[in-house]
Amino acid sequence: MRLVYAFDEQAPGGRELLGGKGVGLAEMTALGIPVPAGFTVTTDACRETMRTGEVPEPLWPEVDEHVERLQDRSGKRFGDAHEPLLVSVRSGAAISMPGMMDTILNLGLNDTAVEGLAEATGNPRFAYDSYRRLIQMYGEVVDGVEGHLFEGELQGLKERRGIRQDVELTADDLRELIGTFQSIYQREVGESFPQDAREQLQRSIRAVFDSWESPRAKVYRRTYDIPDDLGTAVNVVQMVFGNMGDTSATGVCFTRDPSTGERRLYGEFLLNAQGEDVVAGIRTPEPIERLREILPAAYEQLIETLDQMEKHYREMQDIEFTVEDGTLYLLQTRTGKRTAQAALRIAVEMTGEDLISREEAVARIDAGQLDQLLHPMIDPAAEVEVVATGLNASPGAASGAIVLDADLAEERGRAGDDVLLVRWETTPDDIHGLVHARGVLTAHGGMTSHAAVVARGMGKPCVAGCEALSIDTGARTVRIGDLELNEGDQLTIDGGTGRVIVGSVPLVPPAIDENFGTILGWADESRRLRVRANADTPEDASKAREFGAEGIGLCRTEHMFMAADRLPVVQEMILASDEKARRSALDRLLPVQQGDFEAIFEAMAGFPVTIRLLDPPLHEFLPSVEEATSDAMRRRIEQLHEANPMLGTRGCRLGLQWPEVYEMQVRAIVRAARAVADRTGDAPLVEIMHPLVGFAEELRRLRELTDRVAAEEAEVEYSVGTMIELPRACVRADEIAEHADFCSFGTNDLTQTALGFSRDDAEGKFLTYYLEHGILERNPFEVLDREGVGDLMRIAVERGRGVDPELKLGICGEHGGEPRSVAFCHEIGLDYVSCSPYRVPLARLAAAQAALADEGVTSVAVGG
Amino acid sequence: MRLVYAFDEQAPGGRELLGGKGVGLAEMTALGIPVPAGFTVTTDACRETMRTGEVPEPLWPEVDEHVERLQDRSGKRFGDAHEPLLVSVRSGAAISMPGMMDTILNLGLNDTAVEGLAEATGNPRFAYDSYRRLIQMYGEVVDGVEGHLFEGELQGLKERRGIRQDVELTADDLRELIGTFQSIYQREVGESFPQDAREQLQRSIRAVFDSWESPRAKVYRRTYDIPDDLGTAVNVVQMVFGNMGDTSATGVCFTRDPSTGERRLYGEFLLNAQGEDVVAGIRTPEPIERLREILPAAYEQLIETLDQMEKHYREMQDIEFTVEDGTLYLLQTRTGKRTAQAALRIAVEMTGEDLISREEAVARIDAGQLDQLLHPMIDPAAEVEVVATGLNASPGAASGAIVLDADLAEERGRAGDDVLLVRWETTPDDIHGLVHARGVLTAHGGMTSHAAVVARGMGKPCVAGCEALSIDTGARTVRIGDLELNEGDQLTIDGGTGRVIVGSVPLVPPAIDENFGTILGWADESRRLRVRANADTPEDASKAREFGAEGIGLCRTEHMFMAADRLPVVQEMILASDEKARRSALDRLLPVQQGDFEAIFEAMAGFPVTIRLLDPPLHEFLPSVEEATSDAMRRRIEQLHEANPMLGTRGCRLGLQWPEVYEMQVRAIVRAARAVADRTGDAPLVEIMHPLVGFAEELRRLRELTDRVAAEEAEVEYSVGTMIELPRACVRADEIAEHADFCSFGTNDLTQTALGFSRDDAEGKFLTYYLEHGILERNPFEVLDREGVGDLMRIAVERGRGVDPELKLGICGEHGGEPRSVAFCHEIGLDYVSCSPYRVPLARLAAAQAALADEGVTSVAVGG
Repeated sequence: MRLVYAFDEQAPGGRELLGGKGVGLAEMTALGIPVPAGFTVTTDACRETMRTGEVPEPLWPEVDEHVERLQDRSGKRFGDAHEPLLVSVRSGAAISMPGMMDTILNLGLNDTAVEGLAEATGNPRFAYDSYRRLIQMYGEVVDGVEGHLFEGELQGLKERRGIRQDVELTADDLRELIGTFQSIYQREVGESFPQDAREQLQRSIRAVFDSWESPRAKVYRRTYDIPDDLGTAVNVVQMVFGNMGDTSATGVCFTRDPSTGERRLYGEFLLNAQGEDVVAGIRTPEPIERLREILPAAYEQLIETLDQMEKHYREMQDIEFTVEDGTLYLLQTRTGKRTAQAALRIAVEMTGEDLISREEAVARIDAGQLDQLLHPMIDPAAEVEVVATGLNASPGAASGAIVLDADLAEERGRAGDDVLLVRWETTPDDIHGLVHARGVLTAHGGMTSHAAVVARGMGKPCVAGCEALSIDTGARTVRIGDLELNEGDQLTIDGGTGRVIVGSVPLVPPAIDENFGTILGWADESRRLRVRANADTPEDASKAREFGAEGIGLCRTEHMFMAADRLPVVQEMILASDEKARRSALDRLLPVQQGDFEAIFEAMAGFPVTIRLLDPPLHEFLPSVEEATSDAMRRRIEQLHEANPMLGTRGCRLGLQWPEVYEMQVRAIVRAARAVADRTGDAPLVEIMHPLVGFAEELRRLRELTDRVAAEEAEVEYSVGTMIELPRACVRADEIAEHADFCSFGTNDLTQTALGFSRDDAEGKFLTYYLEHGILERNPFEVLDREGVGDLMRIAVERGRGVDPELKLGICGEHGGEPRSVAFCHEIGLDYVSCSPYRVPLARLAAAQAALADEGVTSVAVGG
Repeated sequence: MRLVYAFDEQAPGGRELLGGKGVGLAEMTALGIPVPAGFTVTTDACRETMRTGEVPEPLWPEVDEHVERLQDRSGKRFGDAHEPLLVSVRSGAAISMPGMMDTILNLGLNDTAVEGLAEATGNPRFAYDSYRRLIQMYGEVVDGVEGHLFEGELQGLKERRGIRQDVELTADDLRELIGTFQSIYQREVGESFPQDAREQLQRSIRAVFDSWESPRAKVYRRTYDIPDDLGTAVNVVQMVFGNMGDTSATGVCFTRDPSTGERRLYGEFLLNAQGEDVVAGIRTPEPIERLREILPAAYEQLIETLDQMEKHYREMQDIEFTVEDGTLYLLQTRTGKRTAQAALRIAVEMTGEDLISREEAVARIDAGQLDQLLHPMIDPAAEVEVVATGLNASPGAASGAIVLDADLAEERGRAGDDVLLVRWETTPDDIHGLVHARGVLTAHGGMTSHAAVVARGMGKPCVAGCEALSIDTGARTVRIGDLELNEGDQLTIDGGTGRVIVGSVPLVPPAIDENFGTILGWADESRRLRVRANADTPEDASKAREFGAEGIGLCRTEHMFMAADRLPVVQEMILASDEKARRSALDRLLPVQQGDFEAIFEAMAGFPVTIRLLDPPLHEFLPSVEEATSDAMRRRIEQLHEANPMLGTRGCRLGLQWPEVYEMQVRAIVRAARAVADRTGDAPLVEIMHPLVGFAEELRRLRELTDRVAAEEAEVEYSVGTMIELPRACVRADEIAEHADFCSFGTNDLTQTALGFSRDDAEGKFLTYYLEHGILERNPFEVLDREGVGDLMRIAVERGRGVDPELKLGICGEHGGEPRSVAFCHEIGLDYVSCSPYRVPLARLAAAQAALADEGVTSVAVGG
């Protein structure tokens, strides 16, 4: 097994072996695009190192051999006093983890070589600047020296010289700084800065391997569901220099606008700088268009190259480039991250440009990311006080309490508060705070700064580079002009416009825009799964239709019982001492329920509506013992108290013991259906669903009850089914299917019973512990536990369909709108998924992607 | 399909087709034993009638044909004025349901035929008595006339005549009674008593069919797990008369003593009476030995016949006989019901007599019934006040509050009170009260009375025929001599001796007697399943060894935490504000736990001991909020409060979050094992069990913790395993098995999660409703839900053994001692069952029976 491949070699593996960056460099090399020479150390080497704790024996000899090749090709040599070979060492995992892994530039410099570089380039200032950067980066990355020790000295020197920009420092200043930095290194590390380039290289490669296991890398992987055992590749690239003077530059750019998706060059650059300066957000870069004025030839070449690359990759590319003394080099390319809005526009336009097919367009959209488009926006009608404007770095609006550090953001976010993380700039160490904040506002950094990139990825609103902002982390205040805000004060950001607004403002849900509609239309052509919504009110039902729901998969009737005007009657029903009194209260509830159902049927005309009969235990409709308003109520509350209400008298157990309740509901449904049919001429498609069935006999009796009551009313078509939300119901789905026209998996409860996790008692308690400590990778209430709950579902599908191949099967737990879970539902052959109205578009897309995956059309992994 | 078979025909089916009674009559006929002629209407006919609501068309023609045959053989004719044919109509299901189904005697009599009978027998008194009986029985059974209407008139007449016994009534008295009874019939039914024998017969057969669906029959079937769809056969038997005078008699007897099992004739008879008089307990019968004096020839013939029958059936028989004018007829035979003690003795002795093999002896014992031998008995050392003595009708002792009717017995029994049902005599309508009483005491009736038969079957203590007892149901008092007791007062009965004792008395567990020991020894030779006990204390462990347990399958450590001297330290541990304080409390618990384990290891020397680490949620060790003794405690109680503690932070979730708790326990176990090994030279067989695992990763980490702590201590052998008590653990048993040396099904919790039944909230609430209303046939917490929970277990076994064919699997839920559940465990290939020490003998027997069933050795259904 070879562990190292040069960029111009054909490696026996792709992204998994070489990492995204390595593959990109190799591909660009093959395409004839100007790329520096170099080689890639494979992920195999990293994995082996993680496994054994030592780098594999053949690694260093192979690296030596490739360094030799580099030296031969370039005529430069490691540590040479005249023509020193300099390389960068860059991590590159199979899946992009921006800012997570470490990079070291200018490797190969030492006290001798720096003079050689000065001589060879005729640019001592550049040579010294490169060396001091190496000492700093190497110190930080390889030996863990605190970065501020170096930065402090740099800052101090600039202050002493009375200058603001690094570029104003002279060669002598920088030589002085090299001495200072070496002393810091000596002091902190306990040995002098290594002069042997080979030692520098080996220790750097090893440091990249180790950074895979760093806490921030782990947090990122957890957040993005990236497996822990991929490992990273390491790229060793011959240095090209963007900091060789005013004919040099370095920058990043996208082939399309990652925020809107517009087809235009989009990026930033810094003149006379090294690449890290751009992404680190330390200097605010200039827009890419300025490059046309400053270095027109390089700009033209960049345009041509990017066009060539987009045609090759058939995807929007995110590249890093360097212009070294007028010559363009591409250092990296990867599929560009983008907002959901941009993703849709790009997919639609690339289809129009005949770059990709409709199916590919659909397959490429990250369904999870679309969620951000379905987040609330600031109500256009609201009067808002805009106090500042920054970059519209990640769309969507968010209100929340100002929080000035990531730890507090996490703490308050966990506690259920809406918080905005407000920082000068974020770093990878702030990830945990971003995860728990509603949005992020930074004073510094551009559209490609850490905060912007991460927020876009998470689908969270971000306003970046809002320079009006001044933050005092000591006093815990934020100043915007004359306005002083305290930590905890409410603030709103609009990531779509960059506006910063004082206070909370009303938010509205956005409509689906044209591109979104186009993609969803294409998705609908591909998917097999039907998509329904969970909706309990006519308003929800209308919203669901708007989002393309093809029916209601779960209409919960208990919410109707909770309404303020009905609760007293419901309580009267529960407190009734005999069946007669109970029936009298129910008689009064009947017309109200009927009204609810009529409105829902009309909103869903032409589509099926699944109504679930009363599910929660009766005590949920009564106040706490302390709040009881009578002795009878107190007694009843005590009598209804349950040790484990999740597993108590609820669902069909209630319906069987107090049949008059379900009888009333069935009557209301049937009458409503008749009334709507008479009024509109359209008979509603009624599905009556009995909850919490574990035994076929329960459903048999309830079906009998349903048919009996329906037969007493006007003629109406309906079907009868059940939730499958108990493990027993899964294994006995064959028997249950004999009495069911349809079954709907209630995966919320099924997760609770299959795992023995009470959601109320798990989240924020042991489940949080499990997630934080890696005992579980994902919250099974958010992403379906495919191996456990999913396996029970698979058994149920097999057994249910074994008895009745036509059995209609769906899911109506919250998982029904979660893309990975939707894919699973497709895989096991369900007929439909049902989710909250706002998630219907995601479900439509996820369902299409699952179907396309069956045909081999899969998404290109975004990033690299 | 033929629906009727004569006794002397070869029918194409056995008990299922002809019922137990029908098969017995046919077999006896074939053996040449004197049996009256007759025929059997099959269960097919009954089932078809239940299904369609109408008797099948071919039935009456077939019945007519067989009646014709009877007439031809006997020379008598239905309704004949000189030689009338009389028959009895008797129900007979495949499984005996004593007292549940109805019988009509003397059918065929009418106003004409009764005179013919008087003339033919020369005994008008007998003829009139037979006819008035027919009117009464027919009225009650076929037309639902209240029995007391007839009895009242009979009683009234006897009072007017100044006589006490029915036999003292003259022919004229009886003729008068016939008129009165016919008037009652006319008044209640609205038509005159049918004179057509064919109509009488048809309506009687139909009434027997219908009685299968009577409420009391249904209750009986539910109690004894008899399927509802068997149906009953109907036997039409030519009448022979035990009431033809003093050379006639009727009686019942057993070939062995059903109470002790002794090999001797055991039974009772009445001279000049019909069969129903004996079983109904209306007249107190004489012991069978008296028959030798009164009718010596018939007695000799009876002895010979019974000997022949026992040799044929190789089982103790329970027969009904009638002597008609000196001639013996057998009317019925069935396998005799018996006490557990008798069952053991009969099985052992029949093996000694070479009637049956050891394996058959083992297979024949009803493991469920053995439970009664393991019930408490009156402490021989206790001073008791015996106030009366009755018949020792069903062994075992019981104390409880006196209750005078079945409804109240059920109500108070359900409420958890210990009650004794005290009745003049019980009837089938009292079944529901018997089910809920600890025992039954009757003032009247013999060893074969209803109360005695049913109590023996249920394994409940019964003292019958305690004539000193006088019951006033109006005043709700019981008098015994001068002593007056009120309903609700405590009373004790000893069903083994017949003693009735005032107040509650101390009870002690009985030891296993010789026959029991013999059977268990034979059982041990046949079984494959190992049997362990659930034991938390050295005392339980010793008791378990005594009962033959081969190890401890579940040693719960939480009980050790609950002991009064430890609870304060446990609470200190829970209330500790940091890990250090927690560890300090744990350090003090360690030596105490170690002591517990040492004692248990010594009691179980040479056998494995499975110790389950702490399982319950921590709040179980704290008082209620109201009882908190400090603010800190109150806060902690509130913090630990859970909405559904069953599904909360318990089991391994606790152990993973507070590893120091499990570390302490592992340390205590390992040190105890070392200490015992050093002291005794015998290394304990230690199995450490982690509860509530749902994910393989949980067990992987806990195994790591276990091994790490053990490695810090002295060298000790142990194995590590888990409970399988979550549905997820069942479907992922393959992954879990990779980290487990053994798995033990915790079927209590598995039942709760698989069914979504909180036991606390189900029993006495919806589960009781389900059982009463037939939604469930059995309480799944008592008898394993084979189709649901069992199916999950089967999946777990398959998947776990798929990974590790040597995986040791057991069960330690309460089901581990329930015979049907043990059979299931055998069937799915578990290695052992574990149950409470007192149930170990049952489990040993049930395990043997399951293994024998594999070889085709099954028990003969008791009853018929």
